[in-house]
Amino acid sequence: MVDRTQAPASLEGRLHRCAINTATLGFRMPIERTIEAVARAGFGGIGPWRRELEGQSTAAVARHVRDSGLRVTGYCRSTYLPAMDQTARAAAIDDNRRAIDDAATLGAACFVMVVGALPEGSRDLAAARHQVEEGTATLLDHARKAGVRLALEPLHPMYAADRSCLNTIDQALDLAAALEPAPGDLPDLGVVIDAYHVWWDPRLGEALVRGGCDRRLVGFHVSDWLVPTRDLLTDRGMMGDGVIDLLKLRGLIERAGYAGFVEVEIFSDRTWWRRPVDDVLATTADRLQSRC
Amino acid sequence: MVDRTQAPASLEGRLHRCAINTATLGFRMPIERTIEAVARAGFGGIGPWRRELEGQSTAAVARHVRDSGLRVTGYCRSTYLPAMDQTARAAAIDDNRRAIDDAATLGAACFVMVVGALPEGSRDLAAARHQVEEGTATLLDHARKAGVRLALEPLHPMYAADRSCLNTIDQALDLAAALEPAPGDLPDLGVVIDAYHVWWDPRLGEALVRGGCDRRLVGFHVSDWLVPTRDLLTDRGMMGDGVIDLLKLRGLIERAGYAGFVEVEIFSDRTWWRRPVDDVLATTADRLQSRC
Repeated sequence: MVDRTQAPASLEGRLHRCAINTATLGFRMPIERTIEAVARAGFGGIGPWRRELEGQSTAAVARHVRDSGLRVTGYCRSTYLPAMDQTARAAAIDDNRRAIDDAATLGAACFVMVVGALPEGSRDLAAARHQVEEGTATLLDHARKAGVRLALEPLHPMYAADRSCLNTIDQALDLAAALEPAPGDLPDLGVVIDAYHVWWDPRLGEALVRGGCDRRLVGFHVSDWLVPTRDLLTDRGMMGDGVIDLLKLRGLIERAGYAGFVEVEIFSDRTWWRRPVDDVLATTADRLQSRC
Repeated sequence: MVDRTQAPASLEGRLHRCAINTATLGFRMPIERTIEAVARAGFGGIGPWRRELEGQSTAAVARHVRDSGLRVTGYCRSTYLPAMDQTARAAAIDDNRRAIDDAATLGAACFVMVVGALPEGSRDLAAARHQVEEGTATLLDHARKAGVRLALEPLHPMYAADRSCLNTIDQALDLAAALEPAPGDLPDLGVVIDAYHVWWDPRLGEALVRGGCDRRLVGFHVSDWLVPTRDLLTDRGMMGDGVIDLLKLRGLIERAGYAGFVEVEIFSDRTWWRRPVDDVLATTADRLQSRC
């Protein structure tokens, strides 16, 4: 076991290094108002979702974000890659190419890849993983041309059936190394680490000090694991309300070489999506500075 | 990736190699009636829980099982080992010692170790894992004297907070190797593999062919992962109703050296615990022979 218990530097007074993933606010407002609320609350970054840009001018949203003084930490997220037939897989690739182009327009630090899992009717996890590898290889070419970094996000194993067959940091780093064996200082294929998805992993400490991991890390998401957890998807907790040692985890990730934003992403149907947006942002700001 | 896709021999006509973990029946009947129902349905083994033996003579239950022609595959399960203070940890050890003695009386093939996780108020997963190692080492001495094999059961990572901080086959094998570095042909410390807990693991194939894994495998539990899963604990599916490729998984495990019972363990508040016991047993028998 790797012993790395030293606490990282406090985030107090450093909200400019923190970001809000818009899922945290429950998609209750148009993106313009969300951008303004996030900037007003003092955060330095925002991670928008594609659904919020539908019917909008991506260039106008990009300008609005820039004018508000915010950085786009990541653009969420990829259309799932595995599918039962070649036509559906090709459609997913096309869809993702367009989203990558939008990520470029937004100036996003990365395009977040939630890769998908078993297509309906399939039990073949190995095949799904193979399709993810093929699809990511194809998108990597496009992303390079567009000047966008792809960021593989391993999801908690409880999503292995229906959301992501990429389930550990090791697996994401292995895939990145297979598709981009000799990355430069800024790899085109990176990894986003979300505390909620990886906190349980007995290989967490080891995975984060693997060779080359330092350059792959392009994002760090936080929330908390509630006990009990009442829903597999929408019952994440506010930092400090659950059992994840977020301070220790941030220490591990920063010592592994990550120096980017700490981004809050909370899916919370029963609590935070029901509270006023400004309250959520105020609590988030407080918890980032005291519990992360 | 290890390629081991060959299907195993069918379980058709081999219910004598199959067992019912009594949790599958929802603990709705006294253990005597459960034993009779399981034997009558043609199964060869039963995996009872401690709660069913409370207030009973363990020796009488053991005799009843034997007279019914059943084997006890495993006795479920350990009291959680991690706790906030030394007194509580010692109490858990004492409790487990008594349960191991009962497992010996029952002639159980193993005592199933669900090791526990974060004590209330703790965020220190490393400490919990350390306490599991210490507690298991202590119990191993007692189990040897009692003539009972301990079986570490890694649980799905979604239980890492409140039920088990042992979450992968690799981690279970590492712990077994650390506590029993030079096992004989029948190690005192084995591993139980439950399809529900491990099916997602990208290292599954590799873990099962690790050196010494063949001798450590003392149990194989089956159920299925439903999509969607509505509850983290009590929404397991009947084999064939979910997405786990159980035939492939049994092939992997048997090629890894396991030749024991296939034990059905389904926690299903919304479906199977509401159906008549004999119907559940009939469906289980059918699915074992056609879908596993």
